[in-house]
This record gives sequence, structure tokens and C-alpha cells, in this order.
Amino acid sequence: MAEKLVSRSKDFNEWYNTLVLAADLADYGPARGTMIIKPYGWALWENIQGALDRRFKATGHMNAGFPMLIPESFMQREASHVEGFAPELAVVTHGGGEKLEEPLVVRPSSETLISQAFAKWIQSYRDLPILLNLWNSVARWELRTKLFLRTTEFYWQEGHTAHATADEAALETQQMLDVYTDFAVNEAAIPVIPGEKSEGERFAGADRTFTIEAMMGDCRALQSGTSHNLGQNFAKAFAIRYLDPNNEQQYVWTTSWGLSTRFVGAIIMVHGDDKGLVLPPRLAPYQLVIVPIYRKDEERATVMAAVERVQVALVEAGVRVKVDDRDHLTPGFKFNEWELRGVPLRMEIGPRDVAQDVAVLARRDVPGKAGKAAVRQEEIVGAVRTLLTTIQTDMLARATAFRDANTHTVATYEEFQEKVQSGFVRAWWAGNDADEKQVQQETKATHRCYPLDQPSGEGVCFFTGKPATRQAIFARAY
Amino acid sequence: MAEKLVSRSKDFNEWYNTLVLAADLADYGPARGTMIIKPYGWALWENIQGALDRRFKATGHMNAGFPMLIPESFMQREASHVEGFAPELAVVTHGGGEKLEEPLVVRPSSETLISQAFAKWIQSYRDLPILLNLWNSVARWELRTKLFLRTTEFYWQEGHTAHATADEAALETQQMLDVYTDFAVNEAAIPVIPGEKSEGERFAGADRTFTIEAMMGDCRALQSGTSHNLGQNFAKAFAIRYLDPNNEQQYVWTTSWGLSTRFVGAIIMVHGDDKGLVLPPRLAPYQLVIVPIYRKDEERATVMAAVERVQVALVEAGVRVKVDDRDHLTPGFKFNEWELRGVPLRMEIGPRDVAQDVAVLARRDVPGKAGKAAVRQEEIVGAVRTLLTTIQTDMLARATAFRDANTHTVATYEEFQEKVQSGFVRAWWAGNDADEKQVQQETKATHRCYPLDQPSGEGVCFFTGKPATRQAIFARAY
Repeated sequence: MAEKLVSRSKDFNEWYNTLVLAADLADYGPARGTMIIKPYGWALWENIQGALDRRFKATGHMNAGFPMLIPESFMQREASHVEGFAPELAVVTHGGGEKLEEPLVVRPSSETLISQAFAKWIQSYRDLPILLNLWNSVARWELRTKLFLRTTEFYWQEGHTAHATADEAALETQQMLDVYTDFAVNEAAIPVIPGEKSEGERFAGADRTFTIEAMMGDCRALQSGTSHNLGQNFAKAFAIRYLDPNNEQQYVWTTSWGLSTRFVGAIIMVHGDDKGLVLPPRLAPYQLVIVPIYRKDEERATVMAAVERVQVALVEAGVRVKVDDRDHLTPGFKFNEWELRGVPLRMEIGPRDVAQDVAVLARRDVPGKAGKAAVRQEEIVGAVRTLLTTIQTDMLARATAFRDANTHTVATYEEFQEKVQSGFVRAWWAGNDADEKQVQQETKATHRCYPLDQPSGEGVCFFTGKPATRQAIFARAY
Repeated sequence: MAEKLVSRSKDFNEWYNTLVLAADLADYGPARGTMIIKPYGWALWENIQGALDRRFKATGHMNAGFPMLIPESFMQREASHVEGFAPELAVVTHGGGEKLEEPLVVRPSSETLISQAFAKWIQSYRDLPILLNLWNSVARWELRTKLFLRTTEFYWQEGHTAHATADEAALETQQMLDVYTDFAVNEAAIPVIPGEKSEGERFAGADRTFTIEAMMGDCRALQSGTSHNLGQNFAKAFAIRYLDPNNEQQYVWTTSWGLSTRFVGAIIMVHGDDKGLVLPPRLAPYQLVIVPIYRKDEERATVMAAVERVQVALVEAGVRVKVDDRDHLTPGFKFNEWELRGVPLRMEIGPRDVAQDVAVLARRDVPGKAGKAAVRQEEIVGAVRTLLTTIQTDMLARATAFRDANTHTVATYEEFQEKVQSGFVRAWWAGNDADEKQVQQETKATHRCYPLDQPSGEGVCFFTGKPATRQAIFARAY
């Protein structure tokens, strides 16, 4: 709370950087580009992990642990993979006081290790599918740090699967994109747009890359999760084969998919306001903070007894509750701090409330009196649960309305150039990689995806004038 | 299951190495000394994590994420810390295609990073205590790999706390030792001995190190978790200070404590037998495996319908159930495989069982007919729950009896030399570091700990002949 938050509309970038530190989510690590995720930020990440992990397990995946160190030669085996990652690698050249015969890279992603293991473990069609997920961190060299969005090391999950057929791999790629979409919409209240990346934006080594794209509060796009159909690229590079029911050798089909701590950045930038974070109830470390209000010692005893009763009842009901019982701070200071830190609901209990057998609830997402209500003690648990659901729903509705209000369909490059400076632009697109690069150079906007949700029929590409079968979304992006 | 298990008594080492692979717990990674933890092993580790994490949170700790890369100069700042870790470091010298100005080490433990952050975050006594825990992996260079016990990278948790007073730090060190003991005894059924390490065995940078020591099936000791009182060593090296209520600058007192995937090795070596793993029900990935038995297709339908009913009822009751419905394997093969993999309970359901409305339950820890019983369908849930509790209790009782039968109290070095070859030896000890080294050289046994549980009075050191105030435990160790 040392630093004062600037207005979001005045300087979004500065607002973000200050807020991450002030809300006690994260701090800079001493090695260039590294990040310390503080307990409040980590608790948010743990809730993200829990929400995803349940979905991964429900779709038959199991977690595993793979080494962080990869022999450098492994990275070379899939041509476009090494091309994509070579400039970003952190390389271990010494171990145990000696120079290594072969350098090791700190994993930037684990496709190569996974592929080698798959080649060893898979013999027969009966061994398929293999459905794995890893929770770990990876290193990709970055020169300019932005906490959660761009750090040399970041935490994530990486899913890796192997299948007998191309169809199964395609279904898996789609299924995991659906899982990400469901998670983003229903847990984070972020109305992401699921779509396919253009050729130039594909993952290094993938046949097809799918993405969920989210609109931040400054109308820029953030790629928030990706699902890759790797085809047989890694299977061929690492000789991952199986004997089919006819006793013939076949290459497997593989996929990979990942979502990272970058998603924390999305939550901050989609929902935050000038007062700080606004966290969706389903992921918030604390869903409700109780601020006791008293002056004299005898008031304190009465109020704290009431606070404890409410706390016990709420915890039993499964609500994540924080009681701010710090004696040296004023209620007003605490209100500001918990608003800054985005707790969805605040409960105030003072001597008069205790006497009247009520407590006051204040919504983080609705400022001022409109978001405040006194609730009778015996109705508190029900009221809190209902309000948390309402806040979650309202946050999604607001973010969706904002996204839709700032998404423009255009037909000409002239319109495009104007609209893309302040929103998502949706338009027919038939350009190639060089066209995308030119658009980017001239407008700073990039091809975000071909949304899965497409209009019927065909149109004319706004840039090349060629007939186009798909619309694309362009935006300036993080 | 490709390799055949040798008898545990014939070649314990070979038994272990074969079992880890055959039970599908782990595999070797391609970079020297690294380990892949396979889904079954990882599920066991996840249950260990869950059991510990609950205890950490119940004692007020919060998780956080710290970078894996540490500037090399940080390691130098606490003299004994660098001395202890220097020979084991993995060093990153290149990043993003360029040679780094300062090399980075892959964390072998995070005391230095934590200390730098504490120095930044702590201003006043009101900021204390800080109670953190990290779930991550660390790298310590190893030349000879033994899966779970000795690998270049291993997973663990590392707790880090800062306190205003020496007393509080001492209490925290003791509390976390108690947490580890409680976890080992009540979750893993391993009767560990909590005690204090001798000076020579202390953690690099600690004033005092406490340990839980477990006896493996070959009577060797395994250090299974440690809790360190770091005194003011790191506080002084990193200038971690706070203003006390009198507005005077004070150094904080810090602790750290860790338990790693090594503990999986303890579970294997304490409980395993000639048929394979025997997993304690509270940590087992699957607590019960159902093997359906049928020959004809119409039998299959009847049996599988019964299996599904039982499965649903057990899952609802919170039992972790696996149904082995693989069609191409015989029940006998499945029995062997799940015995090898240590599932605590097996349930057999065949056409005759369905007709008689029963299922057969077989305990992993009690071989043959003695461990088998038919249970009526309506009693299955209750019977399974009771049996899982009984197995857990019996496993702890057996391990305790084994430990006690192989722990010898000795008075002379002659006795010591004989007894220490096949068990723990408990004896009065007043030797110094040089004495310990000589004992190790002559007997291969090391000072494991001064157990917390000490007899009253004093004795004579079996080695130096000096008066001794404490008994120590010696053993050959992993």
C-alpha cells in the first residue's frame, strides 16, 4: 500500500505495474526477469490450479513430474521446435563443479522429454491413449519483465497426450480448448474467444494451434491459453510408434496444451478498476473479509464474539473468510486495503450492528451505497452465498458487455486502421503470413485468431481483396 | 511388469531398483541423475503433498513461489551455506543466446532468495512472523542416481519463516518437526524417530538441525525430513532487520524445513515385500482395485453391472477406487500386478459372487486366505472403510515392531560394531565430529540423531569413555 494507484484510464500500464506490487500479489526476483509470487498471488494461482486440475482429471488425465533439465541435443530433433525456442533458452554448462560434456537447457516446454519417454513407454495400441499433465515452471529468456505477463520463469501446466489416430488427437485438442474456455468463463468470469491461430502464430512444432483470447480493460488482447495439435511431427522426430491391432507399426499422434500464471494478469486486467483488483468469487483467495468496528475495549469483546460466530458459520458453509483483526489500523484503512486487494465481499460488524443483530455487507464490484446492504444475523450465510454467485454472474456480464461494445466488424482497411486502435476488430481475412506482418507493421495489431464461431457464407478480405472463407480477429496485444 | 522382482532379503538394493520401475512409479530421465515421476508415483506424491499442505495451513503457513534461478553471488553470502552447497550446484552461464554477466545457479535450496526478500519485506515487528512454504524442485548434482533417494533434481517442500525472538524460532522448528512426525506416523504408517542432528550433520547455515529418522526394511536408516533453526545466521548475512516496539533495530530469527520425494523411497522400503509395494491406505493412489471375473459375454454384463454399483457406492463414500476392466488380461495377471503396485485392498466380483450377492475382499498386507473374506453387498462400504483403517493401523504396528526388534542398546564399542551391522544402535554418546568420522570409517555407521525421547540420568560414552548426557542413535544409512 506504499504506492498510490494511478487511474486505470490515465495510464493502464502504470496502473497494472503498481497494482501487482501494492496488492501484494508478486515482487521482482533478483535474477533478471524473474518473479516472486507472494502468498496472496500464489493462493489465487492455487485456486486456478484446483479449478483446472479437477477438469483435467474429470477428462481422464493424470499428473506426472518430468525433469527441468533437457540435454541440448534433444531440442534439435524437431526442426521448427528448436527454431522457435533457441533464442529463449537458459543453458546449464557446469554441474557439480565441472564443465558438462553436453550442456543442458532449462525446459522452455517439455515436448522433447515427453516424446522420448513416449517412445520408450508406448509399444502397442493398448498403451494408447496416454493422457498426461505436468504442473511446473519453465524458463524462456526475457529482457523486459512485466510481472505475470512476461517473466524469464513462469509457472504453468503443460498437458501432453499421445493417440492412435489423427481424429483422436484432433478431438483432444478441441476438448482441452473447451476445458480452457469453460474454466475462463465460469471460474474467472472472463468471456474468452476460442479460435484457431494463423499459420504464423502457431506453436513451434504444431500442425494447428488453438487459443483462447481475452480482451483486457484497455481493449488489448491477451492470449490466455493454447491447445496444440502436434500431428506426427514429434512422433516422427522421436520415433514414437505402436503396433496396431493388425500388428503393423504406426506413428502416434500427439497434442500439447498449456495455461500459465499469465492468466493471473488477465484476471487483473479484465476486472480491475481504479481502486484496485476485483477478484471473481470462485477464484478469490478470500471471498469475504470481515472488518470488526469498535472503539472501546468492552465494544471490542462484544464485536469480536459476533465476528467469531459469523466466521465459524461461514467457514462451515465453505466460504473462504478472512478476519482483519489488526488492532493498530483504522476500519477506513482496512476498507481501502481490501478493496485494493479485490476481496469480493466485505462485512462490517460494529456495536450497533451487534445490538440490532445485523451485519453490513459491501460488494467490491458495486461501489458506494448501491453495493451495500444490512443483513440479519440468521440470514448471513444464505445472503453471502447468494451474493457471491451474483457477483460472479455480474462480473461475467460486465466483461462480456465491455468486450462486445469494443469489438467492431469492418469491411475496409481504412475502417480497420481506425477501429483496431481501441478494440478488437473482426473481419474477413484471406491474407498470408507476409500480409499479417504488414498489417502489424502499419497498425501494431496482430492476427489473434480465427474464432470458432463463424458466420455462414463467404466474404471479401479487407486487406487483400481476395475471397475469404473465414473471419479473423485482430487486435493490439500483450 | 517386464522385470521379475528379486527377493527383498536376497538383494534389497536390486529389489528396490527393479520395483520402482516395475510398479510404474518412476523412470530415469535422459540428463544424468534426473528422474521422471510417472503418474502412479506422482499420485502418491500428490497425496503426500495434500497431507502435509493441510498441516502447514492449519499451523498458519501460506504457500508462495520463488524463482528457480539465483545469482551466484547470493550463495556466497552465508559462509557455511556456500561451503555446503558449492560442490553440488548446477550453473546457468548462458541465457537468450548470450553469455551472462553473472552466472545463475539452479536453486539447491532457497534460503538466500528468501533472505533477500525477507530483508525487503520486513520493516516492523508487526510484519512478523512470516510463515511461508514453497512446493517446488531443486537441483543438487549427483553422480550416482537412485530413484527417489538420490537424484540431481528432486521435488520437495521448503518452509521458511522469520520471527521476532529466538524462542519463537525454536518453537517453530519444534512445531514443524512435530508436523513431520505426525504425518509420517499417521499418514505413512512409518514410526519415525524425531531427534536432533549432531554438529557435523547440521544443515549448511543452521544453528540446530532436527530430523525424523526411519528404519528401512534392510534395517538401514533414512533421514526423512528435517527442520532447521537458522538462528540469526541468514538474518545477519542478508541484513534482515525489524523495528521492535521500542523503535530499536533487531535482527530476525529464521527457520527452514523440508521433506522431499525421498519420502516415497521410505514408503517403498519400509512397507514393501517380496511381492512388491504395500502402500498405506491413507496415501495410496488407489485404496481398492476391483477385478471383475467372467468368461462369457453374458457373465461380463452381469458382473460389470455389479462392479459399477459397488464402484459408485465406494466413490460416494470417499474411497479411491480403480476398476481394472482390461479385457485382454487374466484375473491372475491383474492380481499380481496390483499386488506389485501395492493397492491396499482388492475386490473380486465373479458371476457366483453376484448370484450370492457378495464380493470377495483381499488385503494386500495379509497374504493368502488369512487376508481374504467374502462380504455381503449391502455391507461393502462399511467393510471397506473398516478394513482400510485396520490395514493402516496394522502396517504401523508391524513397522514399529520391526524397528523395535532391530534397535539395540549397547554399552561398549565391541557390542556397537556387531549390532550396528544389522540395525539401529542406541547408546550414550559424548564424542565430537572427529569421533563420529572415525566410527563411520570403522563401521560404516553414522550418527543419525539424538532422539528427543531420552532416558533420565547420565551414562558413559561407548566410544570415548567420557560421561555423556545424551544417547544417540547410530546406523548405516541411505
